[in-house]
Amino acid sequence: MLRLVSMAMPDSRPIGVFDSGMGGLTVLSELVQKLPNETFLYLGDTARVPYGSRSPRTVRRYSLEIASFLEQHDIKMLVVACNTATAHALPQLTERMKVPVIGVIEPGVRALLSSTRSRKVGVIGTRSTIKSAAYETEIQKLDPGVTVVSQACPLFVPIVEEGWMNKDFTRLAIREYLAPLRDQGVDAVVLGCTHYPLIRAAIQQEFPGFSLIDSSIEMAGAVSASVRATGIEAAGSGSVKILVTDVTEQLSSLQNLFFPHPVSGVEEILLPELSTTP
Amino acid sequence: MLRLVSMAMPDSRPIGVFDSGMGGLTVLSELVQKLPNETFLYLGDTARVPYGSRSPRTVRRYSLEIASFLEQHDIKMLVVACNTATAHALPQLTERMKVPVIGVIEPGVRALLSSTRSRKVGVIGTRSTIKSAAYETEIQKLDPGVTVVSQACPLFVPIVEEGWMNKDFTRLAIREYLAPLRDQGVDAVVLGCTHYPLIRAAIQQEFPGFSLIDSSIEMAGAVSASVRATGIEAAGSGSVKILVTDVTEQLSSLQNLFFPHPVSGVEEILLPELSTTP
Repeated sequence: MLRLVSMAMPDSRPIGVFDSGMGGLTVLSELVQKLPNETFLYLGDTARVPYGSRSPRTVRRYSLEIASFLEQHDIKMLVVACNTATAHALPQLTERMKVPVIGVIEPGVRALLSSTRSRKVGVIGTRSTIKSAAYETEIQKLDPGVTVVSQACPLFVPIVEEGWMNKDFTRLAIREYLAPLRDQGVDAVVLGCTHYPLIRAAIQQEFPGFSLIDSSIEMAGAVSASVRATGIEAAGSGSVKILVTDVTEQLSSLQNLFFPHPVSGVEEILLPELSTTP
Repeated sequence: MLRLVSMAMPDSRPIGVFDSGMGGLTVLSELVQKLPNETFLYLGDTARVPYGSRSPRTVRRYSLEIASFLEQHDIKMLVVACNTATAHALPQLTERMKVPVIGVIEPGVRALLSSTRSRKVGVIGTRSTIKSAAYETEIQKLDPGVTVVSQACPLFVPIVEEGWMNKDFTRLAIREYLAPLRDQGVDAVVLGCTHYPLIRAAIQQEFPGFSLIDSSIEMAGAVSASVRATGIEAAGSGSVKILVTDVTEQLSSLQNLFFPHPVSGVEEILLPELSTTP
């Protein structure tokens, strides 16, 4: 008896992942563990990092420049591993790209809503992510009855990059930023910035009552599900290539901090500037 | 009797001042007090700030793009109010520009060398300024017998921008960074970053034994002397125009923090990208 089995051909095109800098490697780190057969092309815009303090318009321009560059490298999916870029540019990226685009906010919000009992949730991130209210909007869309308390924590990124995860200094900054959330009855907090997972343990120690949601883990789950659902899985052994717009002094130390896996190459590229402002 | 007096014509062209962001306004603030008749055109590259963590090559490219833009606005002098740009791009800027170019490092070094008695001096700045060893090179050039202890303090800029000048947190960071300098016998320290004058008082309180040199004040003195020496003074009433490459959320709060003077206008511009890398 003949049996027909529907089998998609393996799709060996790379998955494009981008972030304003090296922080998005925390997302890539989760991705390579969940999808070991895939080829990843990571682009960190280290010549213009951080996006968190730029205007929405400039973040959109930078994001579209990167998407357009990655498109030329024949990616099969675009993963926006940057909270600020997701907050400001996701609709424009989705509209422009022919391949699926996945942002970092929605998966984190779903996990956050599953974790809260007090129905008061916290969002922490860069100044620009918080100002965008992108997490708040997504939360209200999925569950309008939940109260959101947001807090920008601009010092957390430099603290992580300085490697000061376990200093008294860091504990003081964590208390300064997060005590108001606890005082308002928040019981679940989403780490709305790719750097924050590295101080997750310190935050948990200061605030043992919080459920902490790591966007990187949630997003990697969403990407993995989407790759499987759309039948674009690769076969064979995966690899990772890292592109940056500036090879800085700190590059390899940040790479080791955020991405403790093998990399097939790190390369500097010059992004073509878009002549029109989106 | 006829008496001939040599009198230069007033030169009403603006003085161009640039920084990676808004920190250079501390220099501009000193300049407008010393040169009240001058017109100043300030450019803050807020779309690409901070330069302190970028590679020397990228800092040179950005600096030349800005100089070339300001040259088109017919400036009579270029003031490089950014320590990182001075460290990496001063020779290239001096070579390229037809007008005098003044960097922020040399004036600070001269004041530093006048202040030390132990002949052990400290330099604090961003990661990139310290890595460049530009202060060290200048110090050794002017007085090879002096010992230099350098310390990068990457958290000071975000602390200042967060307005946390008087927190316990800030005192801990100051101690963490500067205690090694005191322990090595340093008695004079140059604040090698335009943001640092705003935590000068907190540093002095933690380390009363240090002579602290404010590069902004020293540089304004050097610019003022050079304007007079070259006979390019303006007559009439001065004004200040601020150009930025990105109008960010934080812009007006930073402007108020660093520049408590009237401004005739703030305008966003798009810098033409140089096609070749210097």
